[in-house]
Amino acid sequence: MELRHDQLETFDRDGYLFFPGLFSAEEMRVLVDEVPRLYAQRRPENVREKGSEAVRTNFAAHMYSRPFARLARHPRMVRPAVQIFGEPVYMHQFKVNGKMAFDGDVWQWHQDYGTWLNDDLMPEARAMNVAIFLDEVNEFNGPLMFIPGSHKLGVLDAEHDVATTSYPLWTINHDTIAKLVERGGLVAPKGPVGSMILFHSCLVHASTSNLSPWNRVSVYLSLCAVSNHIRRFKRPEYIAHRDFTPIECLPDDCLLKDYDVALPWQDGTPAAALQPLLASLSEEKGPAARRRPKAAREA
Amino acid sequence: MELRHDQLETFDRDGYLFFPGLFSAEEMRVLVDEVPRLYAQRRPENVREKGSEAVRTNFAAHMYSRPFARLARHPRMVRPAVQIFGEPVYMHQFKVNGKMAFDGDVWQWHQDYGTWLNDDLMPEARAMNVAIFLDEVNEFNGPLMFIPGSHKLGVLDAEHDVATTSYPLWTINHDTIAKLVERGGLVAPKGPVGSMILFHSCLVHASTSNLSPWNRVSVYLSLCAVSNHIRRFKRPEYIAHRDFTPIECLPDDCLLKDYDVALPWQDGTPAAALQPLLASLSEEKGPAARRRPKAAREA
Repeated sequence: MELRHDQLETFDRDGYLFFPGLFSAEEMRVLVDEVPRLYAQRRPENVREKGSEAVRTNFAAHMYSRPFARLARHPRMVRPAVQIFGEPVYMHQFKVNGKMAFDGDVWQWHQDYGTWLNDDLMPEARAMNVAIFLDEVNEFNGPLMFIPGSHKLGVLDAEHDVATTSYPLWTINHDTIAKLVERGGLVAPKGPVGSMILFHSCLVHASTSNLSPWNRVSVYLSLCAVSNHIRRFKRPEYIAHRDFTPIECLPDDCLLKDYDVALPWQDGTPAAALQPLLASLSEEKGPAARRRPKAAREA
Repeated sequence: MELRHDQLETFDRDGYLFFPGLFSAEEMRVLVDEVPRLYAQRRPENVREKGSEAVRTNFAAHMYSRPFARLARHPRMVRPAVQIFGEPVYMHQFKVNGKMAFDGDVWQWHQDYGTWLNDDLMPEARAMNVAIFLDEVNEFNGPLMFIPGSHKLGVLDAEHDVATTSYPLWTINHDTIAKLVERGGLVAPKGPVGSMILFHSCLVHASTSNLSPWNRVSVYLSLCAVSNHIRRFKRPEYIAHRDFTPIECLPDDCLLKDYDVALPWQDGTPAAALQPLLASLSEEKGPAARRRPKAAREA
C-alpha cells in the first residue's frame, strides 16, 4: 500500500482519498461479527445515542478486542498515513461508529482537528482519519458528507456543542458552512463493505441521521505523527490515547490469520484511563481555543 | 396532462410517479419568491421546527396567498388525480414543507392515509399527494424516501408519535419497515426545481434531516375524491379542510398569468377553522385506529 503521486496530489487538493472495496468481504466479516459483542458490553467506551440503547460510538476496541487490535496494525490503513507524514504514527483515537439502522443520529459539521486541538492540545494538524466501511454505505444510511478543499483553511472557529447529540463536539456555524460549500460543493463517498476513506483532520464533514433499516458501522483510526503527540490529557485515555509508541504493522493478511496481539484492557479499563488529567504543560499556553498553530493554518 | 396507460401501471405497481422538471423555473419563481413572506407570518398555519424559528410546515397557503391559490388549481397537478379516481377531487390538505437548510428535521416513516384515517375518518385511501419541488432536491438536502410497492398493503399499524418532531404523526414501527424494504427496496427521487411527484396515500415514506446549506421546500397538494370526504372534524380546518367543493382547474399557464382567485383567509384564519369539532357521526363507530376500511386493505 503505497500512495501514487497523483493520489497524493488529489489528497492535497480535496482533503480525502476514497478506495472502494479495498478490503474483501471475507476480511471484513471477522470485524462485522465482533461488533454486536462489542456493543453489548457495559463499559464506558460505549457511548449510546440520546434516548436509545443503540451505540453511537465505541472507543478503543483495539485495546480489548482481538480482531480490532489486528485492524489497528493493518498496513493498508497505517502505511498511507506514515507516507504522508514522513514519520511513524501512533493511535490517537480508535472508534467504531454505529450509525445504526433507524437510531443513528446526526453528526453536525465539524473538523476532527478542531476537537484534538481544543481538547487535547495536539500541536499541528499532522493527524488523519482512516475509515473503513463494515457495512455498505449508500444514499439512505447517512453517509459521511465532505466539503472538498475545506481542509485548506486550517482550523475554523467552532462552538462546543453539548446539546445536539450524546457526544460533545466542536461544531462550525452555518454561515461558514454555506460559504465553504459554495466554494467546494459537497461529496458523500458511497461504496461496498471494505471501502476505505482517508481524510485530512481539518476536512469539514458531517452526516445525517440513518432512518434506513441498514446499519452503517464504520471504523475510524485517527493516526497522529509521533512527534505531534497531544500535550494535554484532559479527556479520558480511552478517547484520546497517551501511549505515543509508533504503530508496528502486521502483515497484509492480518485479518485472515491469527497473529498475536496484546489486549491490555481485556479485563476492563484501567482506572487511570478513565480519568481526565491536566498536564501542567498545557496550562502554560493559555486557552486552547485561541491557539492557531502555523501548520493548521496552512494545512 | 393525461397519464398514459404505462404510467398508470407503474403507479399501480410502485405507488408513485416522478416527473423531473415538469414545471419551468420561471413558473416556480413566482412561488419561490412568495415563500419567505409566507414563512415570516405569525399565524397558526406556520408550524416551526422544535427549538428553531425555521418553518417545518406551512398549511393552507392557498387560502391566503395568490400564487399558491393558483397552484392549487393547476391542471398539471389536479388532473392526474381526477383521472386516477375517476371523479372530481377536493383539497383535503395543502402544505408548503420547509426542510430548511441546516434546520430541516426528519419525518419518520409513515403513510399519509394512516393519519387521514385515524384523525379525520377519511373512509378509503382514495386521496393522494401531488408534490412539486420549489428547490432542487439532491442527495444532501433530505429527499423523500419511498418504499416502492408498500401502498399495496393498505393501512399498516402505526403509533401516534408526538415526541420526535414538532408535528404529530402516526408512524410505523421498525420491524415492519425492515420487512417492507427487504421486499421493495428504497428510492429517493431527486431532480431540478419544478419536478413533480404523485404518490399513493398508503405509500410508506420518510425523510432525513437536512444538514446541507440548501433549502428543500416542496408543496404538497393532498387531493381527495369528493365522495370520499372526511367524516370527522377533529383537527383544525387549516390542517384538514371541510370544504368538499370539487376543484375547478385554471388554464395551464395559471402560474404565469394573473387569473383571479378567491382568498377567503387573506385577512386571517376564521375562528371556526382553528377549532377542532367532533362530528357526531364519527363517535358512533368506535376508535378510528381500529377501523380498517376494505379499500385501504386492498389499495
